[in-house]
Amino acid sequence: MAQAARLSGFPEWLPADRIVEERVIDLLKHTFELNGFAALHTRAVEPIAALAKEGEIDKEVFAVSRLHEEPGDAKTPLGLHFDLTVPFARYVVENAGHLAFPFKRYQIQPVWRGERPQDGRYREFIQADIDIVAEDTLPDHFEVEVPLVMAQAFGELAELGVPPVRILANNRRLLEGFTRGLGLEDVTPVLRCIDKLDKIGPDRVGELLAAEAGADAAQQRLLLDLAAIESTTGEFAEAVTALGITDPLLDEGLESLTRLLDAANRQQPGIVVAQLKIARGLDYYTGSVYETQLVGHESIGSVASGGRYDALATTGKKTYPGVGMSIGVSRLMSRLVGRNRMVQASRSVPSAVLVAVSDESHRDDAAAVANLLRRRGIPVDVSPSASKFGKQIKYADRRGIPFVWFLDGETGHEVKDIRSGEQISADPELWAPPVEDLWPSVSKVTAAD
Amino acid sequence: MAQAARLSGFPEWLPADRIVEERVIDLLKHTFELNGFAALHTRAVEPIAALAKEGEIDKEVFAVSRLHEEPGDAKTPLGLHFDLTVPFARYVVENAGHLAFPFKRYQIQPVWRGERPQDGRYREFIQADIDIVAEDTLPDHFEVEVPLVMAQAFGELAELGVPPVRILANNRRLLEGFTRGLGLEDVTPVLRCIDKLDKIGPDRVGELLAAEAGADAAQQRLLLDLAAIESTTGEFAEAVTALGITDPLLDEGLESLTRLLDAANRQQPGIVVAQLKIARGLDYYTGSVYETQLVGHESIGSVASGGRYDALATTGKKTYPGVGMSIGVSRLMSRLVGRNRMVQASRSVPSAVLVAVSDESHRDDAAAVANLLRRRGIPVDVSPSASKFGKQIKYADRRGIPFVWFLDGETGHEVKDIRSGEQISADPELWAPPVEDLWPSVSKVTAAD
Repeated sequence: MAQAARLSGFPEWLPADRIVEERVIDLLKHTFELNGFAALHTRAVEPIAALAKEGEIDKEVFAVSRLHEEPGDAKTPLGLHFDLTVPFARYVVENAGHLAFPFKRYQIQPVWRGERPQDGRYREFIQADIDIVAEDTLPDHFEVEVPLVMAQAFGELAELGVPPVRILANNRRLLEGFTRGLGLEDVTPVLRCIDKLDKIGPDRVGELLAAEAGADAAQQRLLLDLAAIESTTGEFAEAVTALGITDPLLDEGLESLTRLLDAANRQQPGIVVAQLKIARGLDYYTGSVYETQLVGHESIGSVASGGRYDALATTGKKTYPGVGMSIGVSRLMSRLVGRNRMVQASRSVPSAVLVAVSDESHRDDAAAVANLLRRRGIPVDVSPSASKFGKQIKYADRRGIPFVWFLDGETGHEVKDIRSGEQISADPELWAPPVEDLWPSVSKVTAAD
Repeated sequence: MAQAARLSGFPEWLPADRIVEERVIDLLKHTFELNGFAALHTRAVEPIAALAKEGEIDKEVFAVSRLHEEPGDAKTPLGLHFDLTVPFARYVVENAGHLAFPFKRYQIQPVWRGERPQDGRYREFIQADIDIVAEDTLPDHFEVEVPLVMAQAFGELAELGVPPVRILANNRRLLEGFTRGLGLEDVTPVLRCIDKLDKIGPDRVGELLAAEAGADAAQQRLLLDLAAIESTTGEFAEAVTALGITDPLLDEGLESLTRLLDAANRQQPGIVVAQLKIARGLDYYTGSVYETQLVGHESIGSVASGGRYDALATTGKKTYPGVGMSIGVSRLMSRLVGRNRMVQASRSVPSAVLVAVSDESHRDDAAAVANLLRRRGIPVDVSPSASKFGKQIKYADRRGIPFVWFLDGETGHEVKDIRSGEQISADPELWAPPVEDLWPSVSKVTAAD
C-alpha cells in the first residue's frame, strides 16, 4: 500500500506539467545536439571521497548504503552526486582512452543536495549540463562557446513562454589577480565572501572580508568597488583598471572576459553581461564563471551556472581542463508551472484521438482502427468502457483529447472534433488531425486562459 | 580530482553506445505515446517503510541519509526506489484528485537494487515502465493491452537490430486457485518455489515445495505438472483441466489468460505464450503476470516483466488497481552493446558537419556558418583549432562526422564528403546532407563490420 507522504524538496509534476518539462528537455537536447554535444549518462553514485571535498557543498551530500549490508559488498562509501560536473570529470579520466578530445557532451539527469528546501531550491532536481573538456590545454574560445550555446538554448525556450535571460559572466583569474594585487594571498575566503553579496549586502560582506580574509578597510572598499562593476560591453575593463590594482593574472582575466563580451556582442548582442561580483560557490573553477538570471525572476537565483575548471579531471600525470554550464531544469520549472503559472500544455495526455467503443464485443475492431492510426504516427487511445457515447466524449474532454472516432456513424467511420462539434466521415488509412493538434502543444499562459 | 574507480554493477556507456541507448528510449517513448500513455517522472527516494515490505526485494534496498545530519532534517528514513511501480502507486494515491482515471502513464528512470552484479544484472539500471490504473475496478481488457503495447515496442526495436521477443504470460489467480484446489492454503511459498524452477530445476523445487509449502508428493507432482504447461493458443486451459483440480479462482484465472491469448493471437499472433511456471518474485501481483524472453538470449532472464496488482495503490478507503510492465533497458543494453555487440551507432557525436577554421582570426566566420546550418536543423561542430586542414579532416574522421565545410575553397564555400573525397561548392543557406547522414543512425552489426 502506497501512502500519501509528500517529501519537502522532492518535486513531482502532474502529467500536463511533465509534458512541459519534457518539452523543455527536448528543446535543450536538440540545441545541444545541433551544437555537436554528445549525449551522456553517468551513474547516480560516486565514492563519498570524490564528492566531499569541493567546498561548501560537503555538508549537502546524501550518503547511500545497503539497508542490509552483506559480506560481499564494496567497501567504498558511496553518495549521490550533487552535480553532473564531478561525475563527468571522473568519467573522462576513467574513459580517456576511448574518448576523442576535445570532448563535448551534454547530460540531463537528477542531482541531489541536502539543502533547506525553499522557492526554486530542491533536494532532488534535474540539471541539464554541457561541458567541453580537452587534453592538456583548453583553448579559450570554448569559454565563449559554452555561454553562447546556453543563450541559444534559452532562445529556443522563449518560444514556449520562458522569459528572456541575462547571462552574467566573470573570471576567477580576474578576481584572483585583483585579490593578489591588493596584497591578500588567500583567495578562497575572498571568493566566498563576494559570493554572498546578493544575500547579505556590501556592509556585511565588508565585515566578513575583514573577519575571514583579513582585509583592511582599503582592501574591503576596493573589493566592493570591483564587485560593483558591470557592463554589457568591454567597458568593465577600464573601470577595473581605474581602481589602480595591477597583477599579471588580473590582466589575463580581463583579457579573457573582454574576449567573451566581444564575441557575445557580435553573435548575440546584449545577452551576456560582465558582472564582477559573480564568484560561484564551488572551489573548482579557475577561469570564466557564469550565472544566469531569468529576467523578472531574479529572486530564484541563477537558472544556469558554470565556469572553467582546469584541475577537476586529472590523473596526476594527465590533465583534462574543461568548461561547462548547467541549467537548473527543476528550478526553471518551479517558475514555469508554479503558483503564477507561465507555461501550460494543451492537454494532459499524448493522444489526439479517442476511438469510441460501441460495445465490448467490438473492442477488437476499435483496437484495430487505433493501430491503423498509430501506424501512421497519430497518438490514439481507445475508450476504456463501452458506455454511452456522451460519457466517452466526456472521457476525451477531461483529458483535452480533441477528436473522438466512431466506427459506426451514419456514414460508417466518422470523427468528431469535440471542441467545435463538427463530425465528418473519415478513412483511418487517410485521415489525420491538423498538425497543431497531433501532439500536445506547450505555450505561454495568456490573460485569456 | 576525479579518479578512475569503476564500480561494479553501475554501468556507464561510451558516447556511441549512449546514442544507441537514447535511440532505444526514444522508440519506446514514441510507442508508449502513440498508445496514449502520458510521461511521468517520480522522485528517486521513497520512505524505507514503503519500500521494505514487498517480499524478497527488502534486502536489496539502498538507504539514503544526509552525510551530516542537521536538526531540521526530516525524520522519515529514506531509500532509493527499486522499481517504478511502487513510486507510481504512491504518486497515484497522493495525486488522485488531480488525475483522470483510468490513468495510463509511462516512466523511464534509473532504479537501484543491491543485487550481486552479474551478466545483465546491475545495481543501478534504467527501466521503462507502462502502467494503467483505474479507480475501484480495472477492466480485464487492460491486461491484454499492456503486453500488446510492449510487443509493439519490441517490434519497433527490432528495426535497430534488437532480437525478437516472446512474452510469457500466466495468471496469479490461476496459480492461487490451483494451489487452493490442491488443498494448500498458503499460496506465497508455492509461488516463490515455482519462481525458482528455471534456476534450480524441478527436483529441487519439489523438495522446496515440501519444505516451505508443506506439499506432499502428489501435490508436488501436480504443481510441477502445472508449471510444465505451455502453449501459444488457448490449449493450455485443456491441459490444466486435465489435471483434475477445480476451484472458482482457478476458473477465473483460466478465463483471463485465455482471453489474453485469444486477443494476442488476433492482433499479433505468436508473440504471447502462456507458460504456467511464470510466477514473478514480487508479492503485489494479483492477476496476469508477464515475463519477456529475448529469443536466443534467454540466459539473461526477463527483459520486460510485470503484471496486475489490485491492492498496491490504496488509501484504505479507496483502491486503484493497476496493470503494468517494465522493460529492463540496461539489461537489454548489456546485450546490444556488450561483448558480442549486436547494435551500433554510425558515429559517436551528433554532428553531421565540421566547419573547418583556416586561422583563429576567422573563427567568428566559421561560427556564423555553423549557426546558419544549425538554424536549418543540421547538427554542426566547429573545428577546435586552426590546424592544417588534414588534421581537421582527421578530427572529423575520428568521430565519424561525414562532412567537412571549408569557407575558402577555390569556389568559395565548399563541402567535402570525407568518405568519398568528393568536394563540391555549397551555399550554407541551401545545402543539406543526405537525410540518412543528418543524425547518427543506429543499426544491426553485420558480419562485414
